[in-house]
Amino acid sequence: MSISQNNYIQTNSNMSNRYFETGIVMIGAGNVATHLAQAIDAQKIPIINVYSKTKHSAQQLANKLNTDYTTDINKIPAKADLYIIAVSDSAIASIVQNLEAQNKTVVHTAGSISIDVFKGFSQNYGVFYPLQTFTKNRTIDFSNIPICIETNNSLLEQKLTYLANSLSNNVYKIDSQKRKTLHLAAVFACNFANHMFSIASDILKQNNIDTNLLNSLINETAQKAIDLSPLKAQTGPAIRNDKDVIKNHLQMLKDRQEFEKIYRFVSDSIFNYNQEK
Amino acid sequence: MSISQNNYIQTNSNMSNRYFETGIVMIGAGNVATHLAQAIDAQKIPIINVYSKTKHSAQQLANKLNTDYTTDINKIPAKADLYIIAVSDSAIASIVQNLEAQNKTVVHTAGSISIDVFKGFSQNYGVFYPLQTFTKNRTIDFSNIPICIETNNSLLEQKLTYLANSLSNNVYKIDSQKRKTLHLAAVFACNFANHMFSIASDILKQNNIDTNLLNSLINETAQKAIDLSPLKAQTGPAIRNDKDVIKNHLQMLKDRQEFEKIYRFVSDSIFNYNQEK
Repeated sequence: MSISQNNYIQTNSNMSNRYFETGIVMIGAGNVATHLAQAIDAQKIPIINVYSKTKHSAQQLANKLNTDYTTDINKIPAKADLYIIAVSDSAIASIVQNLEAQNKTVVHTAGSISIDVFKGFSQNYGVFYPLQTFTKNRTIDFSNIPICIETNNSLLEQKLTYLANSLSNNVYKIDSQKRKTLHLAAVFACNFANHMFSIASDILKQNNIDTNLLNSLINETAQKAIDLSPLKAQTGPAIRNDKDVIKNHLQMLKDRQEFEKIYRFVSDSIFNYNQEK
Repeated sequence: MSISQNNYIQTNSNMSNRYFETGIVMIGAGNVATHLAQAIDAQKIPIINVYSKTKHSAQQLANKLNTDYTTDINKIPAKADLYIIAVSDSAIASIVQNLEAQNKTVVHTAGSISIDVFKGFSQNYGVFYPLQTFTKNRTIDFSNIPICIETNNSLLEQKLTYLANSLSNNVYKIDSQKRKTLHLAAVFACNFANHMFSIASDILKQNNIDTNLLNSLINETAQKAIDLSPLKAQTGPAIRNDKDVIKNHLQMLKDRQEFEKIYRFVSDSIFNYNQEK
């Protein structure tokens, strides 16, 4: 295993699957759990049980994996190679407390939650964070998704690295503080960017214009940011400080106060930010 | 030519190139002019002259097209099939006034400028608006770019439709009011989304984290918005109203006041917007 400067990690490709002979228990059946379990299953690493407090979700995911499920946290298998907790951030702590995790190998998948959530509850723990936006029933190619790993010991690091490398070509060792920063950045890059797409789409709908007209632009906006860096990719009236266009746009938004405020505020930010650079 | 409900227009594919026997004069040599001229040239429609007040730009584009250039607006060819004005919005009006356009067929390429800018100056005028973000020295596939056409007469509409269809599969008839709306939406979908990518990237740089970690997320964010609609694609702490995560993120941004304000404001907007839907 090599760890390069930027913490990019790889395992030897012919390392045998000695880590997952018994199999994995998936705790959770939401977006992340579903995508992750299916990606693991596709690599012939067995998911031996799915837990969710919601029967329908547990059953649905278990069916996809052709495996068992339970809605009782006390009835999950006592022996497994790994317990993956992929539930909402706020539910992680209580799951950990109810898991009798002391002799289990456990990880969570959350960007915002520190590895320390496991302290005192388990001897063998870590984080397995796939940096992506997941929606059920949407096919995702895991091979390009960065998987960020953190563990409390090097043996588990090897095990998680093996698992991560079987799913993705981009595996990184990232500590809790950096993972929180990554998650914050992801909120801007994904959730906030998507809200800009929502507003754009809404403006067109309100004016009976086909929202598909934006598709090519949205696609190129993302590709250009990736290829050139967003700093070099920035265009538009705000960076040019084109006051006539900006005034006109604000006038067009006068009946959509929330959008008008975002327009004004983000335009100012673009101008100020790029002045400083 | 058929005009469907959403103003999607097509020409007969075996229509001969009778419209552009003499050729086109490109007025402007910036991002839009460069990409558009190259796309037209690639279709074997001749660009016979490039005008720019900046000699270097005019020369650079003319060289790419293997054609002539001038920096004197009075020295552009007096006869051409079409004069395309692809300059900054604020420069269009003065170009029109100096062009002796009365007997010329002229269009501009701007989202925000009304077709009426030509009124009184020409008898034969229109708008040819490619809805895309252009950066010099970046290859663009024109075939998916929506081209929005408006004219003051139907003969010119046919001519522009022919030109547009030779460049793109997405040609629309859009009036000035709708084009302004489209341009406003494009500012959100492109310029503002890109600023969110910039902030995300900046946050990572400040913390010595490889910005490439975001590439897969940025790509999927765009694809998901296109495939599902941005409304259905929205995820993250703001839409879940996850107060712990939001509070934590605001705390992490306390030394970047501008980013903190955007975080707070856009999160509120996401929550309010999706509550209403």
